Amino acid sequence: MLTLYYAPGTCALATHLALEYAGAPYDAVRLNFKEQQQRSPEYLRVNPKGRVPALVTPQGVLTETPALLQFIAQSHPEAKLAPLDDAFLLAKMNEFNSYLCSTVHVAHAHGARGYRWSDDAEAIESMKKKVTQNMGDCFELVETRMFQGPWVLGERFSTSDLYLYTLTRWLEGDKVDGQRFARVADHFRRMNEQPQVQKVLAAQRA
Amino acid sequence: MLTLYYAPGTCALATHLALEYAGAPYDAVRLNFKEQQQRSPEYLRVNPKGRVPALVTPQGVLTETPALLQFIAQSHPEAKLAPLDDAFLLAKMNEFNSYLCSTVHVAHAHGARGYRWSDDAEAIESMKKKVTQNMGDCFELVETRMFQGPWVLGERFSTSDLYLYTLTRWLEGDKVDGQRFARVADHFRRMNEQPQVQKVLAAQRA
Repeated sequence: MLTLYYAPGTCALATHLALEYAGAPYDAVRLNFKEQQQRSPEYLRVNPKGRVPALVTPQGVLTETPALLQFIAQSHPEAKLAPLDDAFLLAKMNEFNSYLCSTVHVAHAHGARGYRWSDDAEAIESMKKKVTQNMGDCFELVETRMFQGPWVLGERFSTSDLYLYTLTRWLEGDKVDGQRFARVADHFRRMNEQPQVQKVLAAQRA
Repeated sequence: MLTLYYAPGTCALATHLALEYAGAPYDAVRLNFKEQQQRSPEYLRVNPKGRVPALVTPQGVLTETPALLQFIAQSHPEAKLAPLDDAFLLAKMNEFNSYLCSTVHVAHAHGARGYRWSDDAEAIESMKKKVTQNMGDCFELVETRMFQGPWVLGERFSTSDLYLYTLTRWLEGDKVDGQRFARVADHFRRMNEQPQVQKVLAAQRA
């Protein structure tokens, strides 16, 4: 059995979706970020980073979305969530996921978590002002240079689709007009219709 | 043949080392960051992100260090740069590499590249002030919770050792006393002695 720790609205949705698409048996445990549950001594024993996602497996705890996504895909090859038979295409999946993790997620985080990088209130306010532009620039690159269509990697659906969907959900809050990106917007609509997505979103809202 | 685009002092060193350890035939092309060569139209055709590393392969261009490291390891299994036979341990490698990419590298980048996240000169100065603390906190976590010893993953040498070595080189410039972290400092000394490391550093200086 696997246990996923998540909070609604976070990037942990990508891993939650991967577990559902994989057909893996799992429990999902919600943390209350408003009550700072991710900083509780109990949770810090699971994940000393005090963040989500964290996945407790029989072999130990795993964190970091790109690592989790490939792990779930490799552990459930029948679900075909990654091009495991093609090292180059698998690297393209990991390249995409790494870009979302280290650049797009980081651009977004400067909106609500600028305190990570400055102790100065005005600097933190200043970072918030650039989020719309940075997120727009990131999605422009995804739209024009990375997204192959109909899925991120082309004909093959993969974990990159789950991760892109997760971060596309942040655009509205970051005041980016997602309709600027026609292919990403169409991808988002198609993902919204998938039963696994609807099931996981309902579970996170329940 | 593979062609690596790099600049001295950047995270591209990790990929450069991986190619050397893999025994792969490759060319290394240096970009002059002071002359903004990474923003030239020629290079933007290789990598529209305008960053390094980028690896030109017969199948296409790859970017993002964690993706490149696993790709090189998978393409050269005889070099044993990744635990390819163990999905969980491979995920631990990718977890470590993803942490370096999305948290440690990002903490460092706020020293010289704060303009990415704010247009305000005072805010950019303010970000610089927190780099020493953030990089110290990151390496504290690596030292106490992640590093298994003698190598990052334990007995098995992997790409995580190349990547950790690369980012440990940044501590001095970030005014972090690396000797605070006894196991990481010992790892750094052992890596410095490896002939592949000495060869690549000499090539980057030449």
